[in-house]
Amino acid sequence: MGPDLTALDRLFFPRGVAVIGSASEGKLGYELIRQVRDGGYGVSSESERLFVVNPKAQGAPGVPGYAAVADIEAPVDLAVIASPPATVPAVLEDCGKAGVAAAAIITAGFSEVGNEAAEREVAAAAERNGVRFVGPNCAGIVNTAHHLHPSLETRPPAGTAGVIAQSGAVGGIVLAWAKQYGLGISKFVSYGNAADLNEIDLLEYLADDPETQVIALYIESVSDGRRFMEAVHGCTQGKPVVVIKAGRTEAGQRAILSHTGSMAGADRVYDAALRQCGALRVQSVEEMFDFCKAFVSVPSDLGRRVAVVTNSGGPGVMAADRGEEVGLDIRQPGSTVQERLSDFLPGHCALENPIDLTVQGTGEWYRRALLAVLEEYDAAVAINVSTPYLDSLELARGVCEAAEQAASGPGPEKAVVAAFLPEEIVAESVSYLEDRGVPNFATGERAVAALSLVSQYEPTDRDLLRPTGLSVRSTPGFDFEGPVLEPRAMAWLEENGIPVPAFRFAEAADGAVEGCRQLGYPVVMKIVSPEILHKSDVGGVIVGVEDDEAARQAFRELERIGSGRDFRGVIIYPMVEGAQEVLLGLSRDPQFGPVVAFGLGGIYTEIWEDVTLRVAPIGREDAKEMIREIASYPLLAGARGEPRRDLDALTDVLVQFSSLPFQYPDLYEVDLNPVFVFGDGEGVLVGDVRVITNSSLPGSYDAPF
Amino acid sequence: MGPDLTALDRLFFPRGVAVIGSASEGKLGYELIRQVRDGGYGVSSESERLFVVNPKAQGAPGVPGYAAVADIEAPVDLAVIASPPATVPAVLEDCGKAGVAAAAIITAGFSEVGNEAAEREVAAAAERNGVRFVGPNCAGIVNTAHHLHPSLETRPPAGTAGVIAQSGAVGGIVLAWAKQYGLGISKFVSYGNAADLNEIDLLEYLADDPETQVIALYIESVSDGRRFMEAVHGCTQGKPVVVIKAGRTEAGQRAILSHTGSMAGADRVYDAALRQCGALRVQSVEEMFDFCKAFVSVPSDLGRRVAVVTNSGGPGVMAADRGEEVGLDIRQPGSTVQERLSDFLPGHCALENPIDLTVQGTGEWYRRALLAVLEEYDAAVAINVSTPYLDSLELARGVCEAAEQAASGPGPEKAVVAAFLPEEIVAESVSYLEDRGVPNFATGERAVAALSLVSQYEPTDRDLLRPTGLSVRSTPGFDFEGPVLEPRAMAWLEENGIPVPAFRFAEAADGAVEGCRQLGYPVVMKIVSPEILHKSDVGGVIVGVEDDEAARQAFRELERIGSGRDFRGVIIYPMVEGAQEVLLGLSRDPQFGPVVAFGLGGIYTEIWEDVTLRVAPIGREDAKEMIREIASYPLLAGARGEPRRDLDALTDVLVQFSSLPFQYPDLYEVDLNPVFVFGDGEGVLVGDVRVITNSSLPGSYDAPF
Repeated sequence: MGPDLTALDRLFFPRGVAVIGSASEGKLGYELIRQVRDGGYGVSSESERLFVVNPKAQGAPGVPGYAAVADIEAPVDLAVIASPPATVPAVLEDCGKAGVAAAAIITAGFSEVGNEAAEREVAAAAERNGVRFVGPNCAGIVNTAHHLHPSLETRPPAGTAGVIAQSGAVGGIVLAWAKQYGLGISKFVSYGNAADLNEIDLLEYLADDPETQVIALYIESVSDGRRFMEAVHGCTQGKPVVVIKAGRTEAGQRAILSHTGSMAGADRVYDAALRQCGALRVQSVEEMFDFCKAFVSVPSDLGRRVAVVTNSGGPGVMAADRGEEVGLDIRQPGSTVQERLSDFLPGHCALENPIDLTVQGTGEWYRRALLAVLEEYDAAVAINVSTPYLDSLELARGVCEAAEQAASGPGPEKAVVAAFLPEEIVAESVSYLEDRGVPNFATGERAVAALSLVSQYEPTDRDLLRPTGLSVRSTPGFDFEGPVLEPRAMAWLEENGIPVPAFRFAEAADGAVEGCRQLGYPVVMKIVSPEILHKSDVGGVIVGVEDDEAARQAFRELERIGSGRDFRGVIIYPMVEGAQEVLLGLSRDPQFGPVVAFGLGGIYTEIWEDVTLRVAPIGREDAKEMIREIASYPLLAGARGEPRRDLDALTDVLVQFSSLPFQYPDLYEVDLNPVFVFGDGEGVLVGDVRVITNSSLPGSYDAPF
Repeated sequence: MGPDLTALDRLFFPRGVAVIGSASEGKLGYELIRQVRDGGYGVSSESERLFVVNPKAQGAPGVPGYAAVADIEAPVDLAVIASPPATVPAVLEDCGKAGVAAAAIITAGFSEVGNEAAEREVAAAAERNGVRFVGPNCAGIVNTAHHLHPSLETRPPAGTAGVIAQSGAVGGIVLAWAKQYGLGISKFVSYGNAADLNEIDLLEYLADDPETQVIALYIESVSDGRRFMEAVHGCTQGKPVVVIKAGRTEAGQRAILSHTGSMAGADRVYDAALRQCGALRVQSVEEMFDFCKAFVSVPSDLGRRVAVVTNSGGPGVMAADRGEEVGLDIRQPGSTVQERLSDFLPGHCALENPIDLTVQGTGEWYRRALLAVLEEYDAAVAINVSTPYLDSLELARGVCEAAEQAASGPGPEKAVVAAFLPEEIVAESVSYLEDRGVPNFATGERAVAALSLVSQYEPTDRDLLRPTGLSVRSTPGFDFEGPVLEPRAMAWLEENGIPVPAFRFAEAADGAVEGCRQLGYPVVMKIVSPEILHKSDVGGVIVGVEDDEAARQAFRELERIGSGRDFRGVIIYPMVEGAQEVLLGLSRDPQFGPVVAFGLGGIYTEIWEDVTLRVAPIGREDAKEMIREIASYPLLAGARGEPRRDLDALTDVLVQFSSLPFQYPDLYEVDLNPVFVFGDGEGVLVGDVRVITNSSLPGSYDAPF
């Protein structure tokens, strides 16, 4: 069920609004009427009409009261519902009769307090009556372009940042800061319990919203991982999405479970999913806010070279430290720029980056220094740490002039941002800066961190989750009825284009000797038994078998170990040398479905957790990224005189492996561990495989794919 | 030269203050006079007299002007100097005549602009005249207990946080926030170029200052690493020291070099040094500020169990996430506390941690919930995310009542802190909270981060840098004249109690065979040549030598490799098996002198940089910490079925090794790599050693030890 664009258009651009609830002072309905009126809706335009509906038909100053929405003569597109929970289904019936297309259900007391039945009733009533809604238990919506503020939060200034928040309170913080610290908002939606419209619908709407240049999203869980990824991806192709996904620790997950009733899912999978669909994940509301503030006022294709111009050494050093830490290029200026700076700056000013104008720095020095560095850098941060006796306004003027001149000049667009502080002392200059489009940040460190995030954004154009046309295949040699044994699993991998070594399976000693001879000594012999998952732990792997006699002995030994444990035989491989071992894994996540993992295995995985994940299937680009992003990558790329490994072949295998769950829907978990990666051009070979199917699991697992 | 306590007492508690500089409006001297007057000094008390001194003897309203300090009839303890740089030496002469004990030299234009000669002249004049001073190029001092504010920064409220800042601007940010966000300051010093009094003197003074409970320190470099450590350690035994050490990246270090002319030194060594002397290192002024704010109002022995009580889900989750990340224990409440909570909270409130009162949360609910959780937890964070229509003041009252009742109750002291937000909407309630001693933080995340830092502080009582009585030893077998060869270095290690394997040195083939026989086959044979540092790279290490014939062959091979490279012979060791290899290193840091390093070597060091450092010498406690804190520790402690290693023996060797530079002052660098660590109780053995002495270095290195 995709979003009903017509209904969403009418949600944000209603011809008439009815607030359903008490108009008595102190009541929620009263507050909502006041917010809508004070926001300017229904004040001047004939097509914007505001009504209030309650049993007593009680109105408010300038707002006529009705007993039912259907009684209102004028068209009403949006109902803002704040009446008691038990009344909501009837209100929706009324709305349906009146042709209301959309509702914001502020009323709480549904699934968030365990009252799922009531929520289902609300959803059913809405569907019956053709009303799409956000909520219940939400903080309302805002559309500044329509001066529409039916929400309980601060009314923010108009602008181009769109905010979608599962938590009304987190959204409210952004809106309050937006007002206090100057961030223009296009639209805000708190979607609460998401009984109808959810984050996916709202992302799809804001993707196409011309008023919205950047989207800030707060989520605790998602309703459908893959559709969520598609929706985010639909946005990031044209505008950045900055995301807080809360619940990244055990304590946070427990909190989410207790207040939304929904499982948050594995945080590492969210991390991978967000990255795959081009979202920028941040950890704090400050970062989210700063990013939006930076993004709406600097070029969206900002580069990483940043210069710091400051009038105080210490804060300049701290900004440089942070800038380098967050991946910016805080290089020294070249000789041309240094010469230009030394034309007007006295000898005691530092001309490296940061450029330190010292406390003597004037507005004119800021202007000239900023223009000089912008010749070489992509962005400049103007830091001014003021004291009560300094005139910051003059400095702000210099910064703004530089920003204007830089914007009007030829060549690529550059960015000027400010970090005037400390707060109270520089309030007037900060207003001056922001009124002229120069964003100000609380500290130089926060300014460079925001620029770093902006420089990381690039419109995504990957073929997300669709690298090949995958279809369910027949499954020769793959047993869905019981445990999948190693010989069968190896054959199945080979059929699916994943390279495995030559191998032989033998049920008796003679066959084992024959198999060894065919492969050529030395060989490895391993036990095959559905009851033995960890073969090494029980001595079930014998390496370096050199001749017939040793082969016979090895078989006997494995047979002994397997006795009473459903011994099925042995599998024999040639010995492998000189390879780097890695692991590939497939598992499934409750929110996102099949997930592919890659790492070096062994201590690298167990001690350093040096494993990376992606939601499957992946294309070559993602596979290459996975290989490069593990900390152990140098061991594959050829560190310490080791040979460079065959990363092309490894990439192919990762891509192919990640597609298996879509061709074999019964797969539950697959581990290839180890996979041998040989020298460049020499390929890879699977060393061991473990396959678990849904059918073989105790109980039934409802596979989402 | 230790600090002159008398002079420092007179700096902070002067009987009379003379501002030296112009009293004309807009001049630095004028601003300083105004700051001192507005701060209340010299207004009411007869013993507090304020004067201004300049060539014209120009006074200011209520402040008499003189042409010289010596002309003033009343006693003057403190001179605040803002006259032009060239006049400062003469001013100090004048001060000397007048019996002035201390000066704050605000005037800039000395070493920070490359004018070292002028600064030396100032220092000499001060010394000649018995004047101790802070500066030049500093922002002045503050002593709120004496309502003394001769500084260019914001006048902060009185309290117990002491601030020492190498950068006046960073100090100024703290003071401005102190005023705006309610942090009481005891003393503030910006020490600028530190031509006389420096961070060490000021730390020593604040260590004993009864007004100061916590010290915030901003440094970019230190004058004497070891004395600095002693000074910090002197403080942390009684009060925490929270430190920003700027210049932790290449860009930051370059900036420091350019604006102070001083090398910042290796950041990892600073990190180790700060940790060793019990300081808490933070990365931002916000963290420093928040820590001080928390520390001055919660028990200093705060534990790690923290409960979050909130009226909004999302911000509660984010606080829980951050709390767990920073190492707090955000456990669920036990059944007793849950029962107590469910006595008065409705069913839809979440009783896990966070305790979510929902938007219905009242002041009374906050009070009761906070008191209930404090039965089990060490601290509680009260989060209130308000909207324009909510009455936060009532909630603040509930929080304050809980804090008061918790403080007056029996049992250990507990902490209540608040995170009321967003800022502007809750300004009144925040004032209410802070007036009653409940610190408020900008967000729940910042509140838990500050509590985590407080919980990490414990008064240090280690015998810092003095584990044993070390004295310079004679150096038998240790050649100071040329390169130290492996046989000699091994013998020297053995003499110093560091276990090395049995070994033989041989200059000819027959001797080599004899040596091999004595040790018993199999052996390792390695080349000995002062021109070959990396033996393995040239094939200079032959392992698994099994018999006489192989020994003779190995010798020939090494002789061939060494031909033309000053071949001295071979060294022979028994083969070692089943040990975990580690590395120990000694080097010297320009600021801190000898530094000891420990890690696993090889890829662990080169790829993961899994190495830890300490300023040497260390005691057993530090050595144990080093072993435990590397990421690879599980490999030593017995992970994946590996045996636990002999960590006791390793600890002994680390301690002993770290003392060598103090017994052998000519040591420049020592690498023990590998060191074999055997199973528990089986000891350790040095596998290879490389020693570089100062004497053997090209050019002369001026050893600080």
